[in-house]
Amino acid sequence: MIARLRQQITSGAWPVGSRIPTEPELVTQLGVARNTVREAIRALAHNGLLDIRQGSGTWVIATSELAGVMQRRFATADPDHITELRGTLEAAAAGFAARRRTTDDLERLDMLLGQREQAWATGVRDAFVDADTAFHSAVVAASHNDALIALYADLGQVIRESLRGHFGAELRPEEYMDHTRLVDAIRAQDQGVATAEAAAHTSSCEAAR
Amino acid sequence: MIARLRQQITSGAWPVGSRIPTEPELVTQLGVARNTVREAIRALAHNGLLDIRQGSGTWVIATSELAGVMQRRFATADPDHITELRGTLEAAAAGFAARRRTTDDLERLDMLLGQREQAWATGVRDAFVDADTAFHSAVVAASHNDALIALYADLGQVIRESLRGHFGAELRPEEYMDHTRLVDAIRAQDQGVATAEAAAHTSSCEAAR
Repeated sequence: MIARLRQQITSGAWPVGSRIPTEPELVTQLGVARNTVREAIRALAHNGLLDIRQGSGTWVIATSELAGVMQRRFATADPDHITELRGTLEAAAAGFAARRRTTDDLERLDMLLGQREQAWATGVRDAFVDADTAFHSAVVAASHNDALIALYADLGQVIRESLRGHFGAELRPEEYMDHTRLVDAIRAQDQGVATAEAAAHTSSCEAAR
Repeated sequence: MIARLRQQITSGAWPVGSRIPTEPELVTQLGVARNTVREAIRALAHNGLLDIRQGSGTWVIATSELAGVMQRRFATADPDHITELRGTLEAAAAGFAARRRTTDDLERLDMLLGQREQAWATGVRDAFVDADTAFHSAVVAASHNDALIALYADLGQVIRESLRGHFGAELRPEEYMDHTRLVDAIRAQDQGVATAEAAAHTSSCEAAR
């Protein structure tokens, strides 16, 4: 049960900063007893992934137990080094995703691609960073490499801050990177194009800085 | 001072399982006061990287503070996932190393390449795994990407166990992968070939299993 809830977080289905469904909703969605749901939520709150706020619900505050450690450690890192590391992990994940994506993965990617586009249209940086992070987490989840997924989750906050740093308070139209070709390559199971598209994304970010 | 000693560990100059130079030797090599050396060694021992053994010297036991955490967490991971992750990090590092290697990096790589070849000739698996790990750590160090170096160090023990798992107790001649072309590509600053050589290495390991 803990693993299923954790997967909602690492896959980007429940991004950092979002409120998770209520206990009764989870009982219905997952078809398990309320006690089971409650215990799993408490365990993830204890591990620092969730925050239970009386009267306002339960919120996602981190993607892994090590997120805080990694954030402190990379707080003073060279932003270009973080961008390179992010590009390395995302490009590899895109390649593996092209080989292993399921129909469910493609549905989620299509949905998050749409949400990302909508978030950009609002012009609000934080809304876009949320949607972009959720999209990239879903690509990593579609790699079906658990070690890569865990490591990317550890770097969740670091990557989020790195993404945020690429944009000013106001989003500028020329900064928009469309990811339709990336999703198309994953759909077409074209590992080479998927890897190249994901890598091009981070190197353009780098060039745009 | 702590950073300089740590770098000896993450670069593979002092591999896990090796004894570091004595305090008087370090005082001479690094040109600093004995107290400074002693304090740095104590700090790294406190953080779990070094083990001070009365009468036998100080030994490297881990590559980072998180090495133990990562080892426990990935103890039950799919070995193919670890191989893919290792390949991802090593291929990216080789590419960055081709762009940024210094003369010192090349000297160290040549030396470790020779030691790796000699270790293979002994036919003893653990000696070869030590030398191979030291070589790959040096490639990652030559990337001059501090975030990548830190993350690779976190995975030090995990990667070591993964490497070990590729070989039986007796080394078989047909399993040997020469890394001369990888070092040549890094020397020639050929990012594409360096990346491909490093990636080919881990995919051949995968195929050989």
